[in-house]
Amino acid sequence: MAQKNAEELAKKQREISIAEFFEKNRHLLGFDNPRRALMTAVKEAVDNALDACEEARILPEINVEIIQLSETRFRMIVEDNGPGIIPKQIPKIFAKLLYGSKFHKLSATRGQQGIGISAAVLYGQLTTGKAATVTSKTGKDKKATHIKLKINTQTNEPQILEEGEIEWEEKDHGTKIEIDMDGFYQKGRQSIDEYLKETAIVNPHCTIIYTTPEPNQIIFPRATEELPPEPVEIKPHPYGVELGRLLKMLETTEAKTLQQFLTSEFVRVGPGTAKEICANSSLLPNTKPKKMTRELVENLYKGVQKTKIIAPPTDCISPIGAENLERGLRKEVNAEFYCATTRPPSVYRGNPFIIEAALGFGGDQESDKTIRIMRFANRVPLLYHQGACSITSSIQKTSWRSYGLQQSKSSLPVGPCIIVVHMTSVWVPFTSESKEALADYNEISKEIKLALQECGRKLASFVNKKRRIKDEAKKRNYIEKYIPHVADAIGEIIGLGTIERKKIEDNLTEILEHVRGELEEIKIDNPDYDPELAKIGLEDDSEKDISDEDEEGKKSKPNKNDKQTTLA
Amino acid sequence: MAQKNAEELAKKQREISIAEFFEKNRHLLGFDNPRRALMTAVKEAVDNALDACEEARILPEINVEIIQLSETRFRMIVEDNGPGIIPKQIPKIFAKLLYGSKFHKLSATRGQQGIGISAAVLYGQLTTGKAATVTSKTGKDKKATHIKLKINTQTNEPQILEEGEIEWEEKDHGTKIEIDMDGFYQKGRQSIDEYLKETAIVNPHCTIIYTTPEPNQIIFPRATEELPPEPVEIKPHPYGVELGRLLKMLETTEAKTLQQFLTSEFVRVGPGTAKEICANSSLLPNTKPKKMTRELVENLYKGVQKTKIIAPPTDCISPIGAENLERGLRKEVNAEFYCATTRPPSVYRGNPFIIEAALGFGGDQESDKTIRIMRFANRVPLLYHQGACSITSSIQKTSWRSYGLQQSKSSLPVGPCIIVVHMTSVWVPFTSESKEALADYNEISKEIKLALQECGRKLASFVNKKRRIKDEAKKRNYIEKYIPHVADAIGEIIGLGTIERKKIEDNLTEILEHVRGELEEIKIDNPDYDPELAKIGLEDDSEKDISDEDEEGKKSKPNKNDKQTTLA
Repeated sequence: MAQKNAEELAKKQREISIAEFFEKNRHLLGFDNPRRALMTAVKEAVDNALDACEEARILPEINVEIIQLSETRFRMIVEDNGPGIIPKQIPKIFAKLLYGSKFHKLSATRGQQGIGISAAVLYGQLTTGKAATVTSKTGKDKKATHIKLKINTQTNEPQILEEGEIEWEEKDHGTKIEIDMDGFYQKGRQSIDEYLKETAIVNPHCTIIYTTPEPNQIIFPRATEELPPEPVEIKPHPYGVELGRLLKMLETTEAKTLQQFLTSEFVRVGPGTAKEICANSSLLPNTKPKKMTRELVENLYKGVQKTKIIAPPTDCISPIGAENLERGLRKEVNAEFYCATTRPPSVYRGNPFIIEAALGFGGDQESDKTIRIMRFANRVPLLYHQGACSITSSIQKTSWRSYGLQQSKSSLPVGPCIIVVHMTSVWVPFTSESKEALADYNEISKEIKLALQECGRKLASFVNKKRRIKDEAKKRNYIEKYIPHVADAIGEIIGLGTIERKKIEDNLTEILEHVRGELEEIKIDNPDYDPELAKIGLEDDSEKDISDEDEEGKKSKPNKNDKQTTLA
Repeated sequence: MAQKNAEELAKKQREISIAEFFEKNRHLLGFDNPRRALMTAVKEAVDNALDACEEARILPEINVEIIQLSETRFRMIVEDNGPGIIPKQIPKIFAKLLYGSKFHKLSATRGQQGIGISAAVLYGQLTTGKAATVTSKTGKDKKATHIKLKINTQTNEPQILEEGEIEWEEKDHGTKIEIDMDGFYQKGRQSIDEYLKETAIVNPHCTIIYTTPEPNQIIFPRATEELPPEPVEIKPHPYGVELGRLLKMLETTEAKTLQQFLTSEFVRVGPGTAKEICANSSLLPNTKPKKMTRELVENLYKGVQKTKIIAPPTDCISPIGAENLERGLRKEVNAEFYCATTRPPSVYRGNPFIIEAALGFGGDQESDKTIRIMRFANRVPLLYHQGACSITSSIQKTSWRSYGLQQSKSSLPVGPCIIVVHMTSVWVPFTSESKEALADYNEISKEIKLALQECGRKLASFVNKKRRIKDEAKKRNYIEKYIPHVADAIGEIIGLGTIERKKIEDNLTEILEHVRGELEEIKIDNPDYDPELAKIGLEDDSEKDISDEDEEGKKSKPNKNDKQTTLA
């Protein structure tokens, strides 16, 4: 019986195309509900546009337009002034999952997987049956390529439905992507509006022109003409290469000797370090890479761990900077106290990364609510999956009581406070392909906690100062209350009239101020605050707690085919 | 300049192999730290073994052995008595990602993606450079196939290093997989021990023999000789098919007419319903599928939504059953009160699913801690990513105060309570490929909340009863305290001796009991409790709160190459 079964079972075994896989698992890509789907599609298109502009050293100007076609259907149009894409590459970039330029290099970009924009195209065709339209122009005197595209889900290959050249006069170069899809448009903390606003805040060099479905036009003008420094691509660091990968690298290297292999394929390995690694591995520097057996590679791997190697360079990652982060926060929140910090670079699995954090306390913020968190990775706002993110759990595990906020055990603190955390790295480890939460690597959460503690200590000294001032004011109030009585009593004893009694009162008040110094005042002093900007992403759910995330998506109109039936 | 850039950029575009993708993103597959990696590997192997046995209708007997090879290296051996695998299929099943029999069919199995066990092989080779070994025998008089395998990550194809036939006398049929990998072994709530215990609890038909690295042997014997009913495979339900997929199905169908297409490719569509769908779509039942344009398919899609179609059958999913769930809970926790419920089947994206929940209150459980949660999907325990799971957020969003537990806003409740939730479906939507948390589909969280509310109401009436009894006891205590004094007073008034006064006292007590009824007693009455079993998965971190999940992994010895450096 078992015999028969083994063969029967074998018949059902099949290869699964990656496109089929993600079609069925579209929630992995951020397309679980109509509201989030629309937001994710915009996000993927805008992130790509920003990456392309920055790579070509062009100041980005991005047009985003959402048009409502029917109750449940929308057209998303995202247009950039980037370098354009050569015709041959367009189909694969937009209609093949796992295809791109960013996966195989180590540098800090927004995209990294080669999935995002093709996933949006896939979702569009899945829900509307329609192709996506791409227009791209690579130079002033050129015509633009105009292509209609679908993904063949069985093969994960692009399917070109229409291809031609058109004039595109408004632009010297750039790319435009149009996708029709089922969706739902709603403002709020997990909206396109919020995503674009936060993007503008942490990318002050870009201009975003956004037309909502209503239609309303919101323009986020650039605040600086300066592009962030170009992140340099690096080779892997020896500490970050696992044994299996080392084995594979040695199989495919063109180096003739082990020493040459080490110096040419890794960062931070000069001839001296290479020799030291060889010595620590009991291997000769002139060993031929092809001759390395698994056992010898294991020796090499252990040798690497024994050798002290300088950490990787950090010009491959581009922090926003504590000052810029604080300035962005000041625009968004009207608080009494701000602080920000950029941690020194650190390394996980050989990948350099930097954590930055900022904090705003008091002011207009409500004091009986869970604090608000803003999360960013490589300058991209993360709006979903807050509960699954290493940033959130690091905040929960920091003890905020000692910094002046209320907190119950391993919960988010409560108080009039906003916390911003940014991670930049050549490879950000996300918890899923939708790239909305950081995975819980020890080295990363440690750095986040250190950044939070730095901000927390500054917060504590502000909160203490505020408390001191409040106590002092209370004390003075108390003394002031008795001054008239004291003056009265003195007046009575030495028999003075009302006017002289008033004089004594004034003198006593003067003495009080002289002795105790002037009372400091804490007030909001924030000329950068932009109430119009702060309102964006707030309209529909100002009453909602941010911790209710992912719930919001559910308020959206359900897809027709998400209908629920309870069986009889 | 832009011109040049477009072409320069084009040169870097490349296809990314799915194996490369997951090698770099191994945390997506559950291999983010050495402790979790070892657990995930065991889980993937055991889940596959159980699926294979059940599909072949064999009572599963599974051997799990973890051998420590060095400080950071372990060998995992998982052996089953399943039907075996025919030689030709072994390489692809164990060394090709996205290959399997479960993805393309709709039925409730543990595996569904065709990723898991190959991911474990990939992780093993990545961290040790070593091949995995598979032994499989498909029948009594046959030899076993013995293969050493690796994955070629560039192509995602299996690489056979050694292949041969051996005698395997102990077994008539079965499969054994051995993988060496870097890992860390630790007991606790996220351990292999806990995973195997919970698996045994919700799969009472299987025997698991587990040898820990110490080595200790733990045997979980089967509690029933009865296999769960075989889940039937179903066709898709019309409501669950998105427009794009409908289009594709019509392109590839062999049906000659639209009516035939509808009745043959879907569940719950007979000729009557098919005709009704056609009428609602303004299409003729004899339209040729090949002639359907996108616009016509869109009409058909809308017609389907307008037609009332019976929900899909539910013999494709196999709930554990409220009674079994409660029995399992009784073994694990010694409580005062238990209840459990199985919800009626429901549907999301056309996929039928069932939610079951159980609850244990009071008894040995600590009352000042966050409640404990046990999560299961298709009979598989989910030990990681509790914070990202729809089960957790549904518990948080249920108001437990009215059911007698403490709870602050949108937090987990606090109290001496354990909650168990099981989802079974033909397709469980997980938040990542590691399959540790349920994605937040509206229909699913709604059902979870309904199940929790059912249990909650029963809990409330128990908690109220307990409170009433407590109040009554207090009152009686109070009265009893005064009885001697009353007896004394009466005795004094009518001048009685000590013995007679004692009699009055007894009479008064008797009257009290007679009038107020016998005081009910609440005590633990749970003959099923198995303290030895309950201890498993507890040893190392009995002091820890379960909400500290994912933290535990961090206590594990870091991988050598996870080392951290702070740059100068």
